[in-house]
Amino acid sequence: MSFTRQTVITATLCSSLGLLLASPLWAWDGVVEKQTFEMESFTTQGGETIPNVTVGWEAYGELNDARDNVILITHFFSGTSHAAGRYEADGEPTGYWDAIIGPGKPLDTDEYYIISSDTLVNLGANDPNVTTTGPASINPDTGEPWGMDFPVVTIRDFVEVQRELLESQGIESLHAVMGASMGALQAIEWASAYSDRVERLIPVIGGGVADPWLLATLSAWAAPIRLDANWNEGNYYDGEPPTDGLKEALKLVTLNANHWQWANETFNRDWADEERDPAQDINAATRSSKPWMISPPHAPPLLTPTICSIWCAPTKPLSQATATR
Amino acid sequence: MSFTRQTVITATLCSSLGLLLASPLWAWDGVVEKQTFEMESFTTQGGETIPNVTVGWEAYGELNDARDNVILITHFFSGTSHAAGRYEADGEPTGYWDAIIGPGKPLDTDEYYIISSDTLVNLGANDPNVTTTGPASINPDTGEPWGMDFPVVTIRDFVEVQRELLESQGIESLHAVMGASMGALQAIEWASAYSDRVERLIPVIGGGVADPWLLATLSAWAAPIRLDANWNEGNYYDGEPPTDGLKEALKLVTLNANHWQWANETFNRDWADEERDPAQDINAATRSSKPWMISPPHAPPLLTPTICSIWCAPTKPLSQATATR
Repeated sequence: MSFTRQTVITATLCSSLGLLLASPLWAWDGVVEKQTFEMESFTTQGGETIPNVTVGWEAYGELNDARDNVILITHFFSGTSHAAGRYEADGEPTGYWDAIIGPGKPLDTDEYYIISSDTLVNLGANDPNVTTTGPASINPDTGEPWGMDFPVVTIRDFVEVQRELLESQGIESLHAVMGASMGALQAIEWASAYSDRVERLIPVIGGGVADPWLLATLSAWAAPIRLDANWNEGNYYDGEPPTDGLKEALKLVTLNANHWQWANETFNRDWADEERDPAQDINAATRSSKPWMISPPHAPPLLTPTICSIWCAPTKPLSQATATR
Repeated sequence: MSFTRQTVITATLCSSLGLLLASPLWAWDGVVEKQTFEMESFTTQGGETIPNVTVGWEAYGELNDARDNVILITHFFSGTSHAAGRYEADGEPTGYWDAIIGPGKPLDTDEYYIISSDTLVNLGANDPNVTTTGPASINPDTGEPWGMDFPVVTIRDFVEVQRELLESQGIESLHAVMGASMGALQAIEWASAYSDRVERLIPVIGGGVADPWLLATLSAWAAPIRLDANWNEGNYYDGEPPTDGLKEALKLVTLNANHWQWANETFNRDWADEERDPAQDINAATRSSKPWMISPPHAPPLLTPTICSIWCAPTKPLSQATATR
């Protein structure tokens, strides 16, 4: 391990301070608060050091005195630590696993202390609930966003951050570790790296090997962002972000993560105007400045607005209906 | 129909001229020649007229005297009329359906006259065997490539061109029409538009309805090209073409058209250098200027070179191992 004992102690103190300020912390009633775990520094598997690391996390249920009722939830590729619950007492639950996390649910918050943390990439950096250190954070050495200078982080790095977070709460073993897709990779890495601490492993739609098909698919997900002229090799913090590429990337993720029936039940092919013949001005329609879809002109604009409302709005979390990859 | 009788006659004459020049035309021995069919003009379903239309086509087998042994092959999205055969007597067969077209094969060239034509888009415009009119052709009104001013063409337009081609050879009915993917759409359109001329319909991996899932997938295929800065809204004929976007688009098509086993059997995850530890310089590797794949640094460059050799080389046709979409 690369961390000093001092780091662990500091992290523990910071987290303990959080314990004092948030009350009642463990009596989960469906209202969750994004907690913050801090480390003076974190050294990656690649040997690079990130100073002043902040990691957002959430918990549902109560940690028992033996501290042995812990289920760790590791999040998927395009997700965050918001696995369950509502942020406002009068709001709707917006966690991606609200269906299975809660009182009396399969992951029973009456029995287990269920904890979830962000990974070391601040996906959704414009979301006020995302405070985790990542490429969009300020590099203290330069005063500018890290961007592509942010150290490359791996699944094992995510695990190590989670281990620090758990140790800061005196948690030495896990009743279970469970995650979907990239979360499954973390769960498997946990069981591999710390087999004596993991009693149960629940990988969901994820395997222990990244095969060529997966590598190529992930590459295809990233390609639209890299091709967007605003990407600028990752140096886009001074200008327009590569939003067009992001939309296309998330469209691909959504299509790949869902069954075709999902698309066909969610959208349809009704004519927008039954009186008009789509063929009549097909030329005009398919030549519009941003024709995202080869579609008859009077058909409703399929997918884009809905996907954008799901994915692009900075404060709207991923609905359960969309992806778990 | 929008064509004048004069057009049909002219086309017939042009084709008949071709008959005289190429000899022996119908005794297919595995060596094929790209034939050319010409029309003075073609009016699209959208009502726009394209002058001086040239359509490349190929045929395998011999047309009988009754002209009733014809099987029309309609090609897939990223294909051409090169369904079978070799272009050089000492060359290898390079058609996408060599496995099923030939003497004694399911599409038996000893019995049937099998004909295939390009669609009205000159996909593979840099291939010397692609002479078909399309967006890369010169617009006689401007002396410049048509580009995005080329009329939008539909599946029915492809069918109408094929009908003209067949009529130029005195063919009034089809023993069968058969095509894969977008070729299936043409086959279905044929059977729908000219049910009295189509005796058998063989749509392969294609349906009669473009549902939202398909529309979104096709849109995702096009997205990388549109996002490439060189795309320039389709006006790229004076500069660099959007090759990076094209590569990503064809990568997606290839991945979508094949089973994951294909990717895993075609590529592998052997280390390029077994002596080195991939984690040691993971940062350097994933930050290279064109990191197309999230992959350990010493792994071989997966997919890209092979896919590019299949798709990007202008004169190398699509191998049977890749896509039929």
